Amino acid sequence: MGGASGQRVSDLDETELIARFAPLLPFGAATQVGPGDDAAVIAAPDGRVVVTTDLLVEDHHFRRHWGSAEDVGHRAAAQNLADVAAMGGTPTGLVVGLVLPPDTEVDWVLGFAAGLAAGCGERIGVVGGDLSAGERLMVAVTAFGDLGGREPVLRSGARPGDVVAHSGRLGWAATGYAALEADRTAEANDAVAAFLRPDPPLADGSAAAGAGATSLLDVSDGLLRDAGRIAAASGVAIDLDSTTLVDDVVAAAAAALDLDPLTLALTGGEDHGLLATFPPGTDLPGGYRSIGRVLAGTRVTVDDGAPPVQGLGWDHFRA
Amino acid sequence: MGGASGQRVSDLDETELIARFAPLLPFGAATQVGPGDDAAVIAAPDGRVVVTTDLLVEDHHFRRHWGSAEDVGHRAAAQNLADVAAMGGTPTGLVVGLVLPPDTEVDWVLGFAAGLAAGCGERIGVVGGDLSAGERLMVAVTAFGDLGGREPVLRSGARPGDVVAHSGRLGWAATGYAALEADRTAEANDAVAAFLRPDPPLADGSAAAGAGATSLLDVSDGLLRDAGRIAAASGVAIDLDSTTLVDDVVAAAAAALDLDPLTLALTGGEDHGLLATFPPGTDLPGGYRSIGRVLAGTRVTVDDGAPPVQGLGWDHFRA
Repeated sequence: MGGASGQRVSDLDETELIARFAPLLPFGAATQVGPGDDAAVIAAPDGRVVVTTDLLVEDHHFRRHWGSAEDVGHRAAAQNLADVAAMGGTPTGLVVGLVLPPDTEVDWVLGFAAGLAAGCGERIGVVGGDLSAGERLMVAVTAFGDLGGREPVLRSGARPGDVVAHSGRLGWAATGYAALEADRTAEANDAVAAFLRPDPPLADGSAAAGAGATSLLDVSDGLLRDAGRIAAASGVAIDLDSTTLVDDVVAAAAAALDLDPLTLALTGGEDHGLLATFPPGTDLPGGYRSIGRVLAGTRVTVDDGAPPVQGLGWDHFRA
Repeated sequence: MGGASGQRVSDLDETELIARFAPLLPFGAATQVGPGDDAAVIAAPDGRVVVTTDLLVEDHHFRRHWGSAEDVGHRAAAQNLADVAAMGGTPTGLVVGLVLPPDTEVDWVLGFAAGLAAGCGERIGVVGGDLSAGERLMVAVTAFGDLGGREPVLRSGARPGDVVAHSGRLGWAATGYAALEADRTAEANDAVAAFLRPDPPLADGSAAAGAGATSLLDVSDGLLRDAGRIAAASGVAIDLDSTTLVDDVVAAAAAALDLDPLTLALTGGEDHGLLATFPPGTDLPGGYRSIGRVLAGTRVTVDDGAPPVQGLGWDHFRA
């Protein structure tokens, strides 16, 4: 971005920084009172509101030099909006807290705002926020949504006989992350872009609810681990069909990087696709594809076998 | 707290930490789906929801050694719930993001949860959250509330002739902060406690709305600066009566610490009292006391004079 290049947030006071940041943010179709007062007011047409919150900490969830400020803003919006969709909701708005080291470039902050706006699209508003100085860059987003008169779709409703279906990307972000860590991004361009800017199928949350999904969640920690959450909450087993999980992007990048594509698809997180179960015979809505079935039992298996991978998914406190 | 003393968050995985943290948190009278799924669902009975977010960064907004973990949790809840009240709303719930250095004691985290619960009271739920490792302790709270069918009370409705009224403490937190900085807490016990645990008059938000308040905000950055926000948003002047601003707690502590009590009352932030304007003749509700009047013009003055204090209030990016 041009204009004030080289300017740091410590060169501005909070009011000046907000005055440059706020106009980049979308107001939102459901927003009744936007930023600038003590709090915002958002429409909650059916008398309930879906609420979810997430943190992004520099060098834990992202590295600034890996991508642009727009990427970080986009990801912060997308991963929270995906959690709203994962209840069967339609996202309506979000608020953002931003901790900025004093030497952060103002252009980075404005790029972050542009990325948030891009992640929100036309109808979702950024209705408020808070800025603070701090030693480490950190983003806290809380997102809201509306259920459109339907019951929320929990993790606990899957029943033996249901179809397991997924909408969105599987293993792309993990492949991109591996490429970034290995400094071999040229061999996995699409996957790197997917890691930096997840693109969750937001409309497929309410679509699943409308089609009668019995359970639904956002795949943030890897398919096996998140399928295990549905299995545990519902008291069922889930068997996945390995032939449905690896797409061309992951297959090609994994071959180039000498990684196992099925492991990436089964254990890679951060794509924020939606994992759902539907009663047998349901016409799968939106972008859902069948990837397995719900059985009696308690485990997650692949191709009727035992769990193929140890150390599933992500843990933020252990290495 | 006893039991696992000395244990650090790095000794537990995220699931174990959440399993110990979550049971300490209140569910909330308005909560329909609580923590544990992708998102929570809160009742929004009048079809709108009030939303506000705030950050607390260690060594910027609090110091761990100044008070207990309970204090930090209590403050995190109170300052956000005050912003809901400052729209005329009744708080219904909050979500919390918590960044923890790996060497944080587990007992600190559990104490923080207990403080959040105490700040929420009987009816307000902690409906969700996110934990992350990070270098610096940081708290991000987003709070929600219901307007009970009334219009939100903005900062922009004050009119010449209105009464300016305040409910809550003025200058207590600033006095306590000064005592902590000077390491002279014994001379200002009540004020130190007020800094560590603000006690905003939460019920006086909806009470002000019910009594016809024309403007309302939460005094977080100091009375002069926040009165200036009402003046600017409403296009009015505000004159404050200095004889109404200094109470016994601030007078005694200021004398002991050799500080000017009126400056503390006018510029001290973080007490999260509510500043309102009411039409002339209104019977002031709840804990409101008259502290001045709304005039034609554009400035904030004291005793019909000029602004008495330079450098009003707080700025997070400049020293």
